[in-house]
Amino acid sequence: MQVNPISISEVAGIINARYVGYKDHLITGLNEIHRVKPGDIVFVDHPKYYDKALNSAASTIIINKEVECPLGKALLIHPEPFTAFNQLTLYFQPKNYSSTSISSTARIGKNTTIMPGCFIGNNVVIGDTCLIHPNVVIYDNCTVGNNVTIHPNTTIGSDAFYFKKRTTFFEALNTCGRVIIEDNVVIGANCTVDKGVTSVTRIGKGSILDNQVHIGHDVEIGEMCLFAAQVGIAGCCTIGNGVTMWGQVGVSSGITIEDGATILAQSGLGENIKRNTIYFGTPAAPARDKMRELFATKQLPKLIKKLYEK
Amino acid sequence: MQVNPISISEVAGIINARYVGYKDHLITGLNEIHRVKPGDIVFVDHPKYYDKALNSAASTIIINKEVECPLGKALLIHPEPFTAFNQLTLYFQPKNYSSTSISSTARIGKNTTIMPGCFIGNNVVIGDTCLIHPNVVIYDNCTVGNNVTIHPNTTIGSDAFYFKKRTTFFEALNTCGRVIIEDNVVIGANCTVDKGVTSVTRIGKGSILDNQVHIGHDVEIGEMCLFAAQVGIAGCCTIGNGVTMWGQVGVSSGITIEDGATILAQSGLGENIKRNTIYFGTPAAPARDKMRELFATKQLPKLIKKLYEK
Amino acid sequence: MQVNPISISEVAGIINARYVGYKDHLITGLNEIHRVKPGDIVFVDHPKYYDKALNSAASTIIINKEVECPLGKALLIHPEPFTAFNQLTLYFQPKNYSSTSISSTARIGKNTTIMPGCFIGNNVVIGDTCLIHPNVVIYDNCTVGNNVTIHPNTTIGSDAFYFKKRTTFFEALNTCGRVIIEDNVVIGANCTVDKGVTSVTRIGKGSILDNQVHIGHDVEIGEMCLFAAQVGIAGCCTIGNGVTMWGQVGVSSGITIEDGATILAQSGLGENIKRNTIYFGTPAAPARDKMRELFATKQLPKLIKKLYEK
Repeated sequence: MQVNPISISEVAGIINARYVGYKDHLITGLNEIHRVKPGDIVFVDHPKYYDKALNSAASTIIINKEVECPLGKALLIHPEPFTAFNQLTLYFQPKNYSSTSISSTARIGKNTTIMPGCFIGNNVVIGDTCLIHPNVVIYDNCTVGNNVTIHPNTTIGSDAFYFKKRTTFFEALNTCGRVIIEDNVVIGANCTVDKGVTSVTRIGKGSILDNQVHIGHDVEIGEMCLFAAQVGIAGCCTIGNGVTMWGQVGVSSGITIEDGATILAQSGLGENIKRNTIYFGTPAAPARDKMRELFATKQLPKLIKKLYEK
Repeated sequence: MQVNPISISEVAGIINARYVGYKDHLITGLNEIHRVKPGDIVFVDHPKYYDKALNSAASTIIINKEVECPLGKALLIHPEPFTAFNQLTLYFQPKNYSSTSISSTARIGKNTTIMPGCFIGNNVVIGDTCLIHPNVVIYDNCTVGNNVTIHPNTTIGSDAFYFKKRTTFFEALNTCGRVIIEDNVVIGANCTVDKGVTSVTRIGKGSILDNQVHIGHDVEIGEMCLFAAQVGIAGCCTIGNGVTMWGQVGVSSGITIEDGATILAQSGLGENIKRNTIYFGTPAAPARDKMRELFATKQLPKLIKKLYEK
Repeated sequence: MQVNPISISEVAGIINARYVGYKDHLITGLNEIHRVKPGDIVFVDHPKYYDKALNSAASTIIINKEVECPLGKALLIHPEPFTAFNQLTLYFQPKNYSSTSISSTARIGKNTTIMPGCFIGNNVVIGDTCLIHPNVVIYDNCTVGNNVTIHPNTTIGSDAFYFKKRTTFFEALNTCGRVIIEDNVVIGANCTVDKGVTSVTRIGKGSILDNQVHIGHDVEIGEMCLFAAQVGIAGCCTIGNGVTMWGQVGVSSGITIEDGATILAQSGLGENIKRNTIYFGTPAAPARDKMRELFATKQLPKLIKKLYEK
């Protein structure tokens, strides 16, 4: 999330924090730790992640402890960095839902058809020659390229599944990012694509999603991927070009899948995988190893019988 | 389902049944066997379940055989108890769908936003400061607490998957219960929550459902549970507080999960589990045992080779 | 897809192809290879499938190589048969989406309720005493029988997941078939049923689908089947009568399941199965074998320990 440059002293005032650093230290954006860039504010509230946040690309860190301020950076000391970060993203991008089905600030390209029952939020941009089928919902600030088809009852830009446990409730991280769907993408019926927490969930050029696919927040999908029905990708995954997933595959959060990999049906992937590899099983392993295992397991009842007969 | 007190003789007239018991024996409700309370009618049509129904909390039993009437109870003798029960629930609560998107009998709280394209059925009650995103459907009689968020294209209160096989068709049990969503709940996009058959499906205070989660009829979910995307819970499960399910978990019908349990991704749970346990696999087992099994299975191809080389 | 009889010379003109055969050779339909009938055009573009297409029931074959024309048939020689086939199906059935929620060409039966927010496409036929819940989308040309219930946010007739990989994009096969839902069917909330590529996806009389079920293109489901929540069936499967699938089952494309078979929860079926069999696991195997395997695998850690202790 980009913002107009603002000084740390002003930001400190908004969240009622004490700051450490130069009064004129500038802030140009806010991002969650996975997406930080120079100029950004990031937040951290657990000692385990202090170093990561302090050494990240972020220029300003909201933190709940007096620590040494890294050279050239600034700190915002606040007892609840998570809540303070939410306050700031809401300050810079207040929620303001459209009360009409197609927001007056949405921009729709030439030869694009929006069928009945769709909701197109504020500042949504949809390119040319797209076909948006009935009852599709596209949240504020999302971008759809040219020649994109979205099938009915699909949701683009829902909130991230990203919560902090408090004693008596879960506090949601205010999801203020967006979804970018590039040219020539096809998204099936009843899919869900969450927006980035502060940044972007991207579906690359020419990728195809079958029905009932779920894509978590901040996932980056490359070009010309094929995901069959009921695939689910947790947040923050990075998926290369030409990746194929068959039906009902699940991928854990933060996984990297390189170009050309294939994941066979119903697999559950919990580790990074290399280019052009084929994985299978839960937890997923190289398909050849997994097939050997399955073959061996089939022989196991007889083997056990034999061993005990000795 | 509660009804105004009515005598058994009147009820017998409605379904054209013969009754056994006192003429003035009163009925104050109707419930499916899992949810019966004193004053209720229950039905039973299979000898295997006769005793369970006759000894349940129900005061009146619709049954397809002349049996001895338990003390203080009454019987309604009918050749098709399932059908007779449907007749009664429809008699006391006739179907009468709203023809407008937001029923005139729905009550919406203060500072609650209902976005375009939603359907809010008859007698629905929604609390204060809720955000109901576009194209959400909430059936008749459901209740939503305060500070609840429901994401787009979600369905609250669909019929139970509860059918009786007849020779040439399946007869549906008339689903006449409702859904109660308590305060501070978040429900993701494209979720489905079935109503109780005669009673309540409940999502407890502060629980969070990610996208494409399915909750079956009469499920009771405690407080502050977290269910990741594409989880499916079959009917009549009881889930404690603080239970976590990762993506694509499935739970069989009637299972009890105690407080604080965790079920790892893609697991299929078919047995009750104790508090604070961690389960994994299909069928799910304690995660530690399952991990040992997985580790052992990986060695199996080599082990078999070695054994046969001897 | 049926068409008014048209000569091969005319068709050759439409797609700018050279034809081999009699000038007056007639074409009466177009179908994908799985669904061809005499009179049909089929297409083939890979040498591996030439013989299958040339020997199929189709009377006319669009092909990208000069081959010998089978007796009584005709060929259309075109460098890109896939694209040419799309041109033809679009020529005979141009896309023309309804701009109103309920198309003026849709025919709705007596005592059928279409609730608010539904989209009913061109030429859709819905029978008597149906209940179509809010926000259901039914695409052009689909047919719904009598006494059918469809729950909210369900999509009937979305496009097939059928693409040809080109260098820089995936070319979609133009999906021009339809869905037929027979009498007494119940379809849950947030389901998706893809239309046939050129022919029919059918849900047989009295079959029941729970919520979030996905049915791929050209699937044929028999009578009185029961599919629990989150089941996914890939394209071109043939499923008999009285088949039961429990929650989250997945079935690969092109599989045949005979009458009365049962597939247990979360199984992944990759092979044809016989009548009245029970399957379980991923990949699914006869449940009895699979249970033995699971039992044996549980003993494996101890067994390995014992073997290495010797």
